[in-house]
Amino acid sequence: MAKEREFVKELADITQDLPQWYTDVVLKTELVDYGPVRGTMVIRPYGYAIWELIQAELNARFKATGHRNAYFPMLIPESYLRREAEHVEGFAPEVAVVTHAGGEQLTEPLIVRPTSETIICEMYAKWVQSYRDLPVLLNQWANVVRWEKTTRPFLRTSEFLWQEGHTLHATEEEAREETMQMLEVYREFAENVLAIPVYVGIKTEREKFAGAVDTYGMEAMMLDGKSLQAGTSHYLGQNFAKAFGMKFLDKDGVHKLGYSTSWGVSTRLIGALIMAHGDSRGLMLPPKAAPVQAVILPIAGHKGGVNEKALELEKLLQSSGIRAEADLRDYSAGWKFNEWEMKGVPLRIEIGPRDIERGEAVLVLRHSGEKKSVPLLGIENTVIEHLELIQSAILEKARAHRDSRTKTAHSFEEFSALIDGGNFVRGGWCGLEKCEESIKEQTAATARVIPFNDDLSAAAPKTCVCCGKPSKHKVLFARAY
Amino acid sequence: MAKEREFVKELADITQDLPQWYTDVVLKTELVDYGPVRGTMVIRPYGYAIWELIQAELNARFKATGHRNAYFPMLIPESYLRREAEHVEGFAPEVAVVTHAGGEQLTEPLIVRPTSETIICEMYAKWVQSYRDLPVLLNQWANVVRWEKTTRPFLRTSEFLWQEGHTLHATEEEAREETMQMLEVYREFAENVLAIPVYVGIKTEREKFAGAVDTYGMEAMMLDGKSLQAGTSHYLGQNFAKAFGMKFLDKDGVHKLGYSTSWGVSTRLIGALIMAHGDSRGLMLPPKAAPVQAVILPIAGHKGGVNEKALELEKLLQSSGIRAEADLRDYSAGWKFNEWEMKGVPLRIEIGPRDIERGEAVLVLRHSGEKKSVPLLGIENTVIEHLELIQSAILEKARAHRDSRTKTAHSFEEFSALIDGGNFVRGGWCGLEKCEESIKEQTAATARVIPFNDDLSAAAPKTCVCCGKPSKHKVLFARAY
Repeated sequence: MAKEREFVKELADITQDLPQWYTDVVLKTELVDYGPVRGTMVIRPYGYAIWELIQAELNARFKATGHRNAYFPMLIPESYLRREAEHVEGFAPEVAVVTHAGGEQLTEPLIVRPTSETIICEMYAKWVQSYRDLPVLLNQWANVVRWEKTTRPFLRTSEFLWQEGHTLHATEEEAREETMQMLEVYREFAENVLAIPVYVGIKTEREKFAGAVDTYGMEAMMLDGKSLQAGTSHYLGQNFAKAFGMKFLDKDGVHKLGYSTSWGVSTRLIGALIMAHGDSRGLMLPPKAAPVQAVILPIAGHKGGVNEKALELEKLLQSSGIRAEADLRDYSAGWKFNEWEMKGVPLRIEIGPRDIERGEAVLVLRHSGEKKSVPLLGIENTVIEHLELIQSAILEKARAHRDSRTKTAHSFEEFSALIDGGNFVRGGWCGLEKCEESIKEQTAATARVIPFNDDLSAAAPKTCVCCGKPSKHKVLFARAY
Repeated sequence: MAKEREFVKELADITQDLPQWYTDVVLKTELVDYGPVRGTMVIRPYGYAIWELIQAELNARFKATGHRNAYFPMLIPESYLRREAEHVEGFAPEVAVVTHAGGEQLTEPLIVRPTSETIICEMYAKWVQSYRDLPVLLNQWANVVRWEKTTRPFLRTSEFLWQEGHTLHATEEEAREETMQMLEVYREFAENVLAIPVYVGIKTEREKFAGAVDTYGMEAMMLDGKSLQAGTSHYLGQNFAKAFGMKFLDKDGVHKLGYSTSWGVSTRLIGALIMAHGDSRGLMLPPKAAPVQAVILPIAGHKGGVNEKALELEKLLQSSGIRAEADLRDYSAGWKFNEWEMKGVPLRIEIGPRDIERGEAVLVLRHSGEKKSVPLLGIENTVIEHLELIQSAILEKARAHRDSRTKTAHSFEEFSALIDGGNFVRGGWCGLEKCEESIKEQTAATARVIPFNDDLSAAAPKTCVCCGKPSKHKVLFARAY
């Protein structure tokens, strides 16, 4: 217990100070470290392994919806950014600029991509001639740089990793369908892989992507009731088609402008995962996003055959497709328990001399603390079943948390109190940016999304939570990371 | 035949002008396109799919040898580069520099990584305290920027994708073993996946990596007898340990400097693949590196059931783990034949109404042109067998080409003539850089490697091919891309 207390002591109190707990846990579990340049991060192997799982899951979904991966240059002529008026306004303040290369000053400065619409649209304009070349459905996995003022590992960093899908279509209808399809891909992925139930909807004008006609987003609730924007899908209309000349010869012999979309998620999802599921002991990873799904700990491993049995078990589980790892390191069992708990491994399998005698092992479930003895015979199936149960249990826990903290406000006072209480708050909104800004100034809450399907809609108030005039939209407000 | 001629006409004569053939084929098969910034490339889906296959194959090998993936920041304080004297000398002339970010001039310029030894060593110095923390065995997949004067897609570009492994060890012996192990991983991969037999060996002082004690490399022979450096593995000794303070407390209670290594291959391998195997019709991809291994072409697809049969076949082959694609596009069969040949797909499967009646399909082998009817029943196994045969045949063809063009020179005249003839030439070398440079000036050939195991060593000459003095090394010289 002394060891355990020591471990827990290392983390800030999760119920009092989630941001500090977050910083403590991401550093101590070696997910990430600070890079030498302000706002940069080093993604360490344990964190990068989560990213690789996210990549594999999303790649399968992108492929199933007809997309292919490609790679576009990172350095973009500065002039490209200026071609789309809203886009440059949004991104110019945060770009990093290369002014010298190969020992000489460049004739035109190059920006490090903060996002790649401009360079990708330039290429699409070149590649696409006819309606036969459409749609173009590409995705890229890349690093991007945005010079942010305040940063936090995974959540907001000067450089981060992401995927950005960019598509071009012949019609508005098709482009809008694509935008919604990818939003749904993200929602399903967040729910079924990351075990994070999200609210999806459209963003307000103020919150939308610079250059988009419409931005759709998904919002995840963190443990303290604050929101994290976890993914966005943009319908860009003909804005970029006009700026970059993305024209095609249609079936009817007329040259027309295309309609484009873009959509992305980033290493920020790792932050979402951590802050949606952790507890006082550390991370709590859902099995589908866990680099190690089951850790095997030999108890009294020096005794005859225990370490060997642990390795045998590791092999058996791995051959059944389980990400299992036997930990034979020379530390005390208690120390290892705590370390693997902090690392959020969903299932711990303890095996000692007496267990072997009985033909059993002990399973310990990270999310509930439940312990049970199970037969070694057929343990691979038992483990698979438990991982599925744990995946569901973590999702349901997150859903219950989210639902219990999603409230509706009928007055500004009520609204303000609910926001202070760490809730997502539904409120009416008149549609004026003035009210949106006033709400932000007074409560630090922002309009997260205007939800599509919200079970609370029936109970939604009919007046703007700020000015009391008739509401035009039912908006989900929250403080956000 | 008219169509075919048209296709072939699109490519420069491979026997007369390999570089132009290369440029033609990479653009026309849509592997790559030029980016808007000088020397940059867009890796299109067909090219990126090859890169993903390379990544998967190498990741499996890196994991099997105990390495894990991580990600380090792209932007490096300029001062880091200067800490290792040879390193800065080698890389400073070709770095791109970020001087402004977030609308302000930076207090210290940041370089875009040309390679990551400096920033990774900085982190290792922080992470490693004790011998228990060693070895550190990490790899990263990343983009790097090197401002090159002359560029060519895949082979030499301002920005390219690569993997860079960086390891830290307690002893010289262990670090040297790692260096050699990774060289062997690369060699085996080049031979068994890319079907490129390579020469491995140590680089001369002049050709080694800036900051290394020893650089080992693998050299691939292109179709014109020129060499391409396809991968390198560096033993860095304590050079970076000294510069970045990578110290650890050893078992004996003494603080010691570690020994480091680094090793990398890049998107250049895609260029190697193309120039090692192509022919006048276009690419010739070995099955293990082919995004599409078997293309299914319905003949008279409009006739009853042919397209359906092609799709059924696609499904069957895919479920057997074959990367198969049915091409039902509305183009003539002849046009499609030529297109898929140019794209280098190893196996074409033709299926028409009469084939279906007979329960057969026709296989056409890209590398030999051989055609054969095979039963539809069990065709998945037939295809797998053929892909294996093709993989071997392409390797053996490349090996025969390489062997027939690897010669030994006993005098400078002979040497010069053999180099002009498009050969790799083994020659004695006195060990003086003066002679190495003189050879380069006179023949444009460089010392590629000093091979470890060279069957030709018995016949190697005893005198320097340049000055005639006793030879210290038996060197493999060639002109190189």
